[in-house]
Amino acid sequence: MTPAAQAAIAQADVVIGYSLYLELIRSRFRPGQIIEALPITQERQRAERAIELAQWGLTVAVVSSGDCGIYGMAGLVLEQLRSQGWDGNVPEVQVFPGITALQAAASRVGAPLMHDFCAISLSDLLTPWEVIEHRLIAAAQADFVTALYNPRSQTRTQQITTAQRIFLTYRNPETPVAIVRSAYRPDEQITLTTLAKLTEGAIDMLTTIIIGNQSTRIHANWIITPRGYLGFAG
Amino acid sequence: MTPAAQAAIAQADVVIGYSLYLELIRSRFRPGQIIEALPITQERQRAERAIELAQWGLTVAVVSSGDCGIYGMAGLVLEQLRSQGWDGNVPEVQVFPGITALQAAASRVGAPLMHDFCAISLSDLLTPWEVIEHRLIAAAQADFVTALYNPRSQTRTQQITTAQRIFLTYRNPETPVAIVRSAYRPDEQITLTTLAKLTEGAIDMLTTIIIGNQSTRIHANWIITPRGYLGFAG
Repeated sequence: MTPAAQAAIAQADVVIGYSLYLELIRSRFRPGQIIEALPITQERQRAERAIELAQWGLTVAVVSSGDCGIYGMAGLVLEQLRSQGWDGNVPEVQVFPGITALQAAASRVGAPLMHDFCAISLSDLLTPWEVIEHRLIAAAQADFVTALYNPRSQTRTQQITTAQRIFLTYRNPETPVAIVRSAYRPDEQITLTTLAKLTEGAIDMLTTIIIGNQSTRIHANWIITPRGYLGFAG
Repeated sequence: MTPAAQAAIAQADVVIGYSLYLELIRSRFRPGQIIEALPITQERQRAERAIELAQWGLTVAVVSSGDCGIYGMAGLVLEQLRSQGWDGNVPEVQVFPGITALQAAASRVGAPLMHDFCAISLSDLLTPWEVIEHRLIAAAQADFVTALYNPRSQTRTQQITTAQRIFLTYRNPETPVAIVRSAYRPDEQITLTTLAKLTEGAIDMLTTIIIGNQSTRIHANWIITPRGYLGFAG
């Protein structure tokens, strides 16, 4: 978390978030702050509640894991405000960026994101699978370093296998892959593997997968993508 | 900068970086630290110098703007170590992620990165233009929210016009675009515009451009990309 985000939380009258994330930052709350923990599925309700309290004149911090602007709560709050005919000024909104899962994962395994990259969520809850598949093909074909968010849930298990098959069509089976779960947390798990063996590891909703580009190499437990396409010995 | 990165700099014996970035964090140096400022073009020399000093047994902090793992210094240091036959352990390396330009830019204009996105550098100094053009086409076709790094330099002015033309082939001319220069710095400049008018604004190497996807909308000076493709009124 950045010092700016920490200060915003410290100054808020109300802190709203998913209970697990609030637990992680409990030490930062100050006496007298209103803390409202909501279950993980109720993102829209959290946004609505935050706006309601802000309209009462309270300063509200909506906490999101990673970067709130990347698949996070910032967009939900702004969407909700927009649907209410918000004028853009009252209530006043500020977005504080943070370290998103692909950065946390990358920093734990080396420097896989040194060249053009993309992020694709494999969750088809709100996005048709055809759109996701189209993006996987585009990313694989155009040799983007690719981070996969939400790769697998208890009920949704086929998407990661399809993603692997698509990448194998365009990229070497030996392409380095990082499978990172709960980066920087006590239960962190890191696996370096290859595209061919991607689905052999333990993968769930807390996992981020990074697939290298054609120049990415594994060296002594580090993943390195060179800056350019010239002068790389391979 | 995260508290973890701040602590790493505070604990280092030597801080190495581009002079302008070192100037920005001057207040964090402690008495007695060795500070080595090198010109902006000498990235490889900075990496080599850092490794040399680390091999003497000193703790060295290599400072990079944004996220050192995204088009930053982390990859150069690891590449250089790799070319020297590094065993992955000595000298010990840690990578501290930070807020990269696309996140800083996004947070200043709303929440454009709420759906799948990619980052493409338009600099063809180390990457053949055909590779970059291929990625632009893939990103435009597959409807990624797209962040363009290094969009224009004094000598390299055509790439951004070509990128605009490619995106206009696949995306609505009214697609929202954010042009953000020096986010969070005193000389910050923010322009919200459209794909059709992208090249009318002032664009240089310190600018990051974010092009929305087909669902991205401008609302009262905020750019919002909805979470999914379902249930968006448009």
